[in-house]
Amino acid sequence: MPSVQTKIQSLRKIMQTEQIQACIIPSTDPYIGEYTPDRWKTRAWLSGFTGSAGTVVVTMNKAGLWTDSRYFLQAEEQLKGSGIGLYKTGLPGTPTFSDWIGSELSAGDCVGIEGAVFAASEAKSLIEFFSEKRLKVRTDFAPYDSLWKNRPAVPANPAFILPECFAGKSCRKKIREVVAEIKKNQANATILAASDTIAWLFNIRGNDVNYNPVCVSYAVVSENETVLFISPDKLTQGVSDYFRKEGIITADYEKIADYIQKALHGATILITPSKINYRLYSILLENCVIKETSVHPADLLKSIKNATEIAGIRNAMQKDGVAMVKFLMDLEKALANNETITELDVAEKLRTYRSEQALYFGESFKTIAGYGAHGAVVHYEATPESNAVIHPDGILLIDSGAQYFDGTTDITRTVSTGQVSETVKRNYTWVLKGHIQLASAIFPAGTVGMQLDILARQALWKAGQNFLHGTGHGVGCFLNVHEGPQSIRMNYNPTPLEPGMITSDEPGLYLAGEYGIRIENLLLTVQAKTTEFGDFYTFETLTLCPIDTRLIDCSLLYPEEINRLNAYHQRVRDRLTPLLSPEEAEWLKEQTKPIGY
Amino acid sequence: MPSVQTKIQSLRKIMQTEQIQACIIPSTDPYIGEYTPDRWKTRAWLSGFTGSAGTVVVTMNKAGLWTDSRYFLQAEEQLKGSGIGLYKTGLPGTPTFSDWIGSELSAGDCVGIEGAVFAASEAKSLIEFFSEKRLKVRTDFAPYDSLWKNRPAVPANPAFILPECFAGKSCRKKIREVVAEIKKNQANATILAASDTIAWLFNIRGNDVNYNPVCVSYAVVSENETVLFISPDKLTQGVSDYFRKEGIITADYEKIADYIQKALHGATILITPSKINYRLYSILLENCVIKETSVHPADLLKSIKNATEIAGIRNAMQKDGVAMVKFLMDLEKALANNETITELDVAEKLRTYRSEQALYFGESFKTIAGYGAHGAVVHYEATPESNAVIHPDGILLIDSGAQYFDGTTDITRTVSTGQVSETVKRNYTWVLKGHIQLASAIFPAGTVGMQLDILARQALWKAGQNFLHGTGHGVGCFLNVHEGPQSIRMNYNPTPLEPGMITSDEPGLYLAGEYGIRIENLLLTVQAKTTEFGDFYTFETLTLCPIDTRLIDCSLLYPEEINRLNAYHQRVRDRLTPLLSPEEAEWLKEQTKPIGY
Repeated sequence: MPSVQTKIQSLRKIMQTEQIQACIIPSTDPYIGEYTPDRWKTRAWLSGFTGSAGTVVVTMNKAGLWTDSRYFLQAEEQLKGSGIGLYKTGLPGTPTFSDWIGSELSAGDCVGIEGAVFAASEAKSLIEFFSEKRLKVRTDFAPYDSLWKNRPAVPANPAFILPECFAGKSCRKKIREVVAEIKKNQANATILAASDTIAWLFNIRGNDVNYNPVCVSYAVVSENETVLFISPDKLTQGVSDYFRKEGIITADYEKIADYIQKALHGATILITPSKINYRLYSILLENCVIKETSVHPADLLKSIKNATEIAGIRNAMQKDGVAMVKFLMDLEKALANNETITELDVAEKLRTYRSEQALYFGESFKTIAGYGAHGAVVHYEATPESNAVIHPDGILLIDSGAQYFDGTTDITRTVSTGQVSETVKRNYTWVLKGHIQLASAIFPAGTVGMQLDILARQALWKAGQNFLHGTGHGVGCFLNVHEGPQSIRMNYNPTPLEPGMITSDEPGLYLAGEYGIRIENLLLTVQAKTTEFGDFYTFETLTLCPIDTRLIDCSLLYPEEINRLNAYHQRVRDRLTPLLSPEEAEWLKEQTKPIGY
Repeated sequence: MPSVQTKIQSLRKIMQTEQIQACIIPSTDPYIGEYTPDRWKTRAWLSGFTGSAGTVVVTMNKAGLWTDSRYFLQAEEQLKGSGIGLYKTGLPGTPTFSDWIGSELSAGDCVGIEGAVFAASEAKSLIEFFSEKRLKVRTDFAPYDSLWKNRPAVPANPAFILPECFAGKSCRKKIREVVAEIKKNQANATILAASDTIAWLFNIRGNDVNYNPVCVSYAVVSENETVLFISPDKLTQGVSDYFRKEGIITADYEKIADYIQKALHGATILITPSKINYRLYSILLENCVIKETSVHPADLLKSIKNATEIAGIRNAMQKDGVAMVKFLMDLEKALANNETITELDVAEKLRTYRSEQALYFGESFKTIAGYGAHGAVVHYEATPESNAVIHPDGILLIDSGAQYFDGTTDITRTVSTGQVSETVKRNYTWVLKGHIQLASAIFPAGTVGMQLDILARQALWKAGQNFLHGTGHGVGCFLNVHEGPQSIRMNYNPTPLEPGMITSDEPGLYLAGEYGIRIENLLLTVQAKTTEFGDFYTFETLTLCPIDTRLIDCSLLYPEEINRLNAYHQRVRDRLTPLLSPEEAEWLKEQTKPIGY
């Protein structure tokens, strides 16, 4: 394999020929997903840096990688000898890569990007930024097929249909709902590129990326017809049959450009610029009238789970709880017996227990098992090098989840591995208090996540503490573990929480060099009551797994918080016990016994 | 005086000559204030409707008034025989006046407005809306001088300087700060029209409108010079001397158009479109480069009170608390003695007690004294017709405030007048809990009002209740009782709460036909602590007045809430007692005695 330096030199030759003075290589792909198929790991191929987030910029005489604090060490290691400088995003004094390009180039110079791997919203703001600096932007600069020997192909894994007993609604019905929304927005059609939106709409699933059970494709939904642009390799008999029944036309996924130019010429197309790549956007720009909406109606429909999906996730949660209980009991035993158990063992054991459950498909993200100081690294992933042995004198943070055909799970527990200080307990209790306060919220229709967020933080804030990630993200049904459009964060997001949405509740506290605490359940928004003041909503906690009571300082909780925790534990016990061995049931009974005040 | 019908016919004649098919007459004035000087009460003059909010639209064959639920009854009464239809804003099926105009007029027709009495932001969105409907808009249609016999003149009341012992900062220093902000925004100058912004910046006060101690004027602040466009009648010797010392140029207030055309031609002007009238905006549009900012830096500076202002408001609060205590004791006595006391008596007594305090200037808004069902009318104003006698069997809501030279007050208390039910107590306690939760919040720098708002509502929401007004508004220092840019509401407002800002904390509950509850104190944002997670802020409660403990159901409060209330009452007692007669002090002691749990 050629060295990074050689690859960059080859890229520069093409840049010179094409009169491009700077080239931006991001981590993103045409399908706006969290995980990139190998084919589009261009930045990793070019630079050697394999972290999930990072942007490389190459000019004629310099090259730089921009990445965040999660990857500072890894990037330094992987960039050694590459000639690529490391720009630490988030540190004071680090310029953004756009600012840096602005200062390196001169008016009239040209920046090259591959439009297909940028969200349209992202590319548009780059173009605007650079045009203010009087730089040109070419959005079709993609010389990687020729430079990248043995570049992986577009994933051609077979797809499959998610049966309606899990999806709860036919593809035809969903499309009818989307078409109604298109018309409401005074448009003729919409184009979809985000693989989870397409997976939901067509009841199709696949294996093209890690953790998200999706496949790469594009789709056009119009008043007249629905076309899924997808590699024929993916169209197994089951998929083809279902699509025939549902009236879906399929076409090779490269044909979408043609289709826009011919079938959609002059039409008004509804799109969400953050959910479509810039290549498609620019084809639309030339051929159609674009109508933009910041939240795509298909994503809003996807986020509101139907009764079948809700029944499925309740079932998946029961299985996931059983796996968690088996794992937690094992962990406790191993520690009691002084067995050596590491962070990687934790991930492996969890995977094993989950894989034994019915309808298991895979993990929903890479398990985070952080012992002691590792728990304070928010996106910690144990590696063979970092892998810590768990000792009976601290706390362990475990964030994990699974994809089942009937639902997606995501749970974080922080557990005591032995003696802990009163300070740890106090901090754990502040996090728990926030977790409970949010879970027991009641709020009127129309409330957005930013309004609720403080419920999860006020106890921490009163102690002068905080956590700098969001409190809650949407979760799909046998789909992406992170989905929109709703969220619960310190930032404003105008989408209200609606009945049927699943959102995480995961306050935390991270003390660098010491430990990390996070407690996460998934919450279903449900109707609470209707009064003269309108509809009020609340949450049903979906996750079923004990919360470590050994870490609680009861004196810091209100009676109503303790009552709620006890009631939760009662429900966990009731739902899981029938599926446990007598020993496990006994262990769970102990874990879930009421605490007092 | 000619009848409304005659006035409208005269207006229609001019509309016909000018080829205008619809004319909009709002309640607003050129100075973007809450209260309109008589000269600009054009809508009231034309229609006979005197409510504070309402818009009249006249077409060649129809006329309508749009107003909200506060004024439905009054409008029906006042519009009788006028031929003007009443459009009840907020009721389902009521079109907006813009929609109505859109449906009444035909493409190519022209809508006339007087740009000077619309905020630029408002006029711009009307123009955009009508242009989508293919209607023209003329923004200089103002035939009222000729139609309106004996139209009041532009207010010519003398102005006065607020001494620096109250303002805390010289006009010169404030201007220097504003100029720095203008430069930071890459502009050369700014134009101010909002009378409270100008009052703050120039340390000038006046008597041109009710309740707000301001005068009408315009100002230009540039790198080179500061010009106040103001009627010479207002320039008393003190004002002139101070301005001379501070380097302020004055000019007649009609000269501003000229000045923009000449002195500012080609310059970049920073403005806030919601804080400047459309007439000035359109002159800028023709002569300058406009730079828009949604929050004007002068308004942000104004909202952050300096140490002198804070000392002043603490002092004003002490005086206001004394007046409130005298009044509340009187009320209690009168009720005990079966004296007849009405809502209007309440307002009058309060005004009297306040006027006896040092540095009293006037009321800061019209007192709301709502007994029983009147308390449920959020903007209730007792009139001789509605004026209710207060009986010893219910609750009374009193929202009132004063302008003192050293500060502006705004306080609401809900007091028991005798026997009340357990339900009333429970509801009062939910409101009080929200009030206390917000007042005791601790939050990191950067937090906005929407994040805190739920603290004041969560107890009510859990009971299926809500209040549909904001929780908190900014308050000026011897200035408008309602000011921006911060707020605490269910709606998003991007301005964070900063140390030095004064904001109200006024949750409530309104049960139509029964009663209303509101508890309001003013809060000063102050530094709480600095930790590894950054700066945290909290509130100092400025208002000093007992909260009626007879209405509290202690079993619904957390111990920490009870402790906080007791500590507040201790502080009220400590601060007010030295200024009270022995009898009053005794009464206060009883009112503020600790409650238990």
